[in-house]
Amino acid sequence: MTPPPHRPDGGLAAYDVIGFDADDTLWQSEDGFRANELRFVELVAPHAPDGVDVKAALTAVERKNLHTFGYGVKAFAISMVEGAITITGGKIPTDVIAELVEMARTQLEEPVRLLPHVPEVLARVGAHYRLVLITKGDLVHQTHKITTSGLEHHFDELEVVLEKDPETYARLLARFDVEPDRFLMVGNSVRSDILPVMALGGHAVHVPYHLLWDLEHVDHDEKFTELASLADLPALLGIPD
Amino acid sequence: MTPPPHRPDGGLAAYDVIGFDADDTLWQSEDGFRANELRFVELVAPHAPDGVDVKAALTAVERKNLHTFGYGVKAFAISMVEGAITITGGKIPTDVIAELVEMARTQLEEPVRLLPHVPEVLARVGAHYRLVLITKGDLVHQTHKITTSGLEHHFDELEVVLEKDPETYARLLARFDVEPDRFLMVGNSVRSDILPVMALGGHAVHVPYHLLWDLEHVDHDEKFTELASLADLPALLGIPD
Repeated sequence: MTPPPHRPDGGLAAYDVIGFDADDTLWQSEDGFRANELRFVELVAPHAPDGVDVKAALTAVERKNLHTFGYGVKAFAISMVEGAITITGGKIPTDVIAELVEMARTQLEEPVRLLPHVPEVLARVGAHYRLVLITKGDLVHQTHKITTSGLEHHFDELEVVLEKDPETYARLLARFDVEPDRFLMVGNSVRSDILPVMALGGHAVHVPYHLLWDLEHVDHDEKFTELASLADLPALLGIPD
Repeated sequence: MTPPPHRPDGGLAAYDVIGFDADDTLWQSEDGFRANELRFVELVAPHAPDGVDVKAALTAVERKNLHTFGYGVKAFAISMVEGAITITGGKIPTDVIAELVEMARTQLEEPVRLLPHVPEVLARVGAHYRLVLITKGDLVHQTHKITTSGLEHHFDELEVVLEKDPETYARLLARFDVEPDRFLMVGNSVRSDILPVMALGGHAVHVPYHLLWDLEHVDHDEKFTELASLADLPALLGIPD
């Protein structure tokens, strides 16, 4: 709510607000989807026709459903149920479908797994800058993760959005009362955290995670700062040790 | 964004912000759930043991899942799939499960059906007051309905929240920079739109809809203003014809 007490010199230009992505930037997310995807293939492949690529077929169902069902575990659960039926021509046993629903429930209820260095980086950066969290996905799941992460107090604003496109960022920056060139976004997805912010004239730092969902892949020619670890962010911002 | 140009005298006390619920206050919602619930019973009952109350069993699954899956059509879809399997002991055919998923897809994609008088009431009240929309449910579905309703321009703020409890309203009123006693909420759910706002010291007007979801029912002794129709709101606020 209050402006930062001090803007360090050096490093990148100073900012009024720094935005953080959440999934695979502050805590693990894709690992859970990959584990359930592997389990889906194990469960469904024995009932599918020979030669069918079960994982590719599931991704195709997810892609088809993205516009209507959106992001997150519930949409993934519905795509798994639909995919299990269509891929097997209806031959999937109902106890497998019940297990798919339980996998989604477990994924929604499992504890947040923070990535390395996250609490100390937020504390150090938050001492100098106003921080906001901007995440997309399922409202109930993201809210659960934010409130149980122990990180909520670092952020002035918590935003769960439908899509991370330039229009959405423009609306949020207006709400935060910050000009794009005074805003820095930090995240693992070039498609969602980097390119749309740069399109507005804002700044972005890419911190890749070793897993990326197929539907987040993007081809691009843009140049931007990439960090091997979130632990390198304070130094990039010129914050002294 | 701007304060209201004029606060009419008479009627209720004047307010700085008027909040509107969306589902079954501005547009139909419960009708779609009821139709799918009836269809669920038609589809599942023939495979269920004799004497099982299929509708009551589905509601019990929804109640159990509410904390983990939240509100909205995707949560309802997952509860229908789970319920169809558990109620029939796994005997439900997979083509019925596929139809349940399609019912959810249709519900998410169908056009918004505005309730009577809504556009003119928002225009008249919005000429005097700053309006905000506060709705709970599925982020993708609520956003779709808001943007396709043609009503978005009436509202300064659009908030899709996880739960309508006093804590959530307190957070939103702080964001809107309004004191509770200068805030009026208008909605069809006593549990979600009326009681939590009154608990904060705010004001509320109940506009019942003829259908109410079982999980929204609440017992209470509170007294508050009830309108037969949203068309009566301008007069209640002292807005001249």
